[in-house]
Amino acid sequence: MSTLTKAMSKFRLAVVQLQVSSVKADNLSRARRLVKEAAGQGSKVVLLPECFNSPYGTGFFSTYAERIPGESTQVLSEAAKENKVYLVGGSIPEEDGGKLYNSCTVFGPDGELLLKHRKIHLFDIDVPGKIRFQESETLSPGNSLSMFETPFCKVGVGICYDMRFAELAQLYSRKGCQLLVYPGAFNMTTGPAHWELLQRGRALDNQVYVATASPARDETASYVAWGHSTVVNPWYSKSMLPVVSSDQLILCYLADIRQQIPITAQRRDDIYTVTSVQEGSS
Amino acid sequence: MSTLTKAMSKFRLAVVQLQVSSVKADNLSRARRLVKEAAGQGSKVVLLPECFNSPYGTGFFSTYAERIPGESTQVLSEAAKENKVYLVGGSIPEEDGGKLYNSCTVFGPDGELLLKHRKIHLFDIDVPGKIRFQESETLSPGNSLSMFETPFCKVGVGICYDMRFAELAQLYSRKGCQLLVYPGAFNMTTGPAHWELLQRGRALDNQVYVATASPARDETASYVAWGHSTVVNPWYSKSMLPVVSSDQLILCYLADIRQQIPITAQRRDDIYTVTSVQEGSS
Repeated sequence: MSTLTKAMSKFRLAVVQLQVSSVKADNLSRARRLVKEAAGQGSKVVLLPECFNSPYGTGFFSTYAERIPGESTQVLSEAAKENKVYLVGGSIPEEDGGKLYNSCTVFGPDGELLLKHRKIHLFDIDVPGKIRFQESETLSPGNSLSMFETPFCKVGVGICYDMRFAELAQLYSRKGCQLLVYPGAFNMTTGPAHWELLQRGRALDNQVYVATASPARDETASYVAWGHSTVVNPWYSKSMLPVVSSDQLILCYLADIRQQIPITAQRRDDIYTVTSVQEGSS
Repeated sequence: MSTLTKAMSKFRLAVVQLQVSSVKADNLSRARRLVKEAAGQGSKVVLLPECFNSPYGTGFFSTYAERIPGESTQVLSEAAKENKVYLVGGSIPEEDGGKLYNSCTVFGPDGELLLKHRKIHLFDIDVPGKIRFQESETLSPGNSLSMFETPFCKVGVGICYDMRFAELAQLYSRKGCQLLVYPGAFNMTTGPAHWELLQRGRALDNQVYVATASPARDETASYVAWGHSTVVNPWYSKSMLPVVSSDQLILCYLADIRQQIPITAQRRDDIYTVTSVQEGSS
């Protein structure tokens, strides 16, 4: 359990519940300013929301899409470097080879790109009378797990609907991640029903921290995000109310929980197993 | 999806939050009476709590243990047959070959034994200042999955701490179960923190119904059960307040949910998989 040898560490993580408008330049400058504010609070890891540079909607993705590296990721890289933080850059619509993806980039404190996660599970749902959304009408899915190392712990990355798939979190946990981050934009139907429940379930089942960042709720948008960015661990859930909100993550607390309720060691690998069919980036 | 062809079915399930005393004969007669009451409410499947014939505690298991078939399972068989119900007989301490198990028996409406599930994951936890319990000091674990068929749907069985292990529920769901039942006796520490959360997580992630039956809370017992027997589905949670409490399970509702938020079909089997290492009873 080499990951737990680091378990004496603690660090501050900030979640930015960004107001996202239709003006990309405004979104970028606002994000940059708020990353600085988060760093000013002592945060070492900062999380932006899904689709932070563009309104969320299939009609917007192609208009706002960029290559990576590009304008938006350049801003992220600079913001990470200026503030010496690990910056999980929410997500942006990415264009590559004529296809569009919903992609999260993560930058280290030196401004280097650590990983790019393309949303694996596209958000295609149809709850009659409530919400129909089909990302697959315009987006292509990613095909890889995405993890990065920090001096504090290893971190697994998913985007929004990826959180509904327990296996992804199970694999991240088995590969040593103690924090899972999900930039996400749940809506007014699935948000109150499932947003916090999914996070708490992932944290409880895998004995990890889970952090989510949502765009701020905008009742005038075509897609109204639920908001409610959250940080949870196996015993508690903390709603991140201010636009920039941070929480201290104490990794030895996870080690304690894993000792007290040792499901990680008690799993019956002789009866069942969760495996990764193909190895993704790590 | 052959299991979903039955999805027009609905049926009433009852949960019996049994008061368990130190007098085995009283526990058996009380259970028998309440199964009849549940059937009188129109229930076709009836669920008793973990350790329904004995106080819960490592000091009691050997005293109350029986072989199967034996006195307690004979009562269960007769109660199932008299009332023409599927009876999930909570659990009892079982003795077999010099070993003790925490075992759930399930009987059909003709009184026949359909399966015996031995708790796979023994309850060994140690939360300092709150609760220490080590089932493994006296019990041996089971090694198999346990499912049974009804005219309504296939049902997967776990006992209490088994519910903490997501893989068991994932396998049951993949094998076609639309209802998971967990007789369980959480306590005053883990109960408020995790009991409902685990059930809601299993139901949400696997798009199934989950039902739990706890012994009634007895503040004078050496182990105080949390109570709060519950029935949940992916959208709601219903606390079963009266001693005998029933709920209508509507299987086409699950089919609707699986169509609206089709995570079952959207899973990325090309990236991850949950597999059973050995095949259990089915």
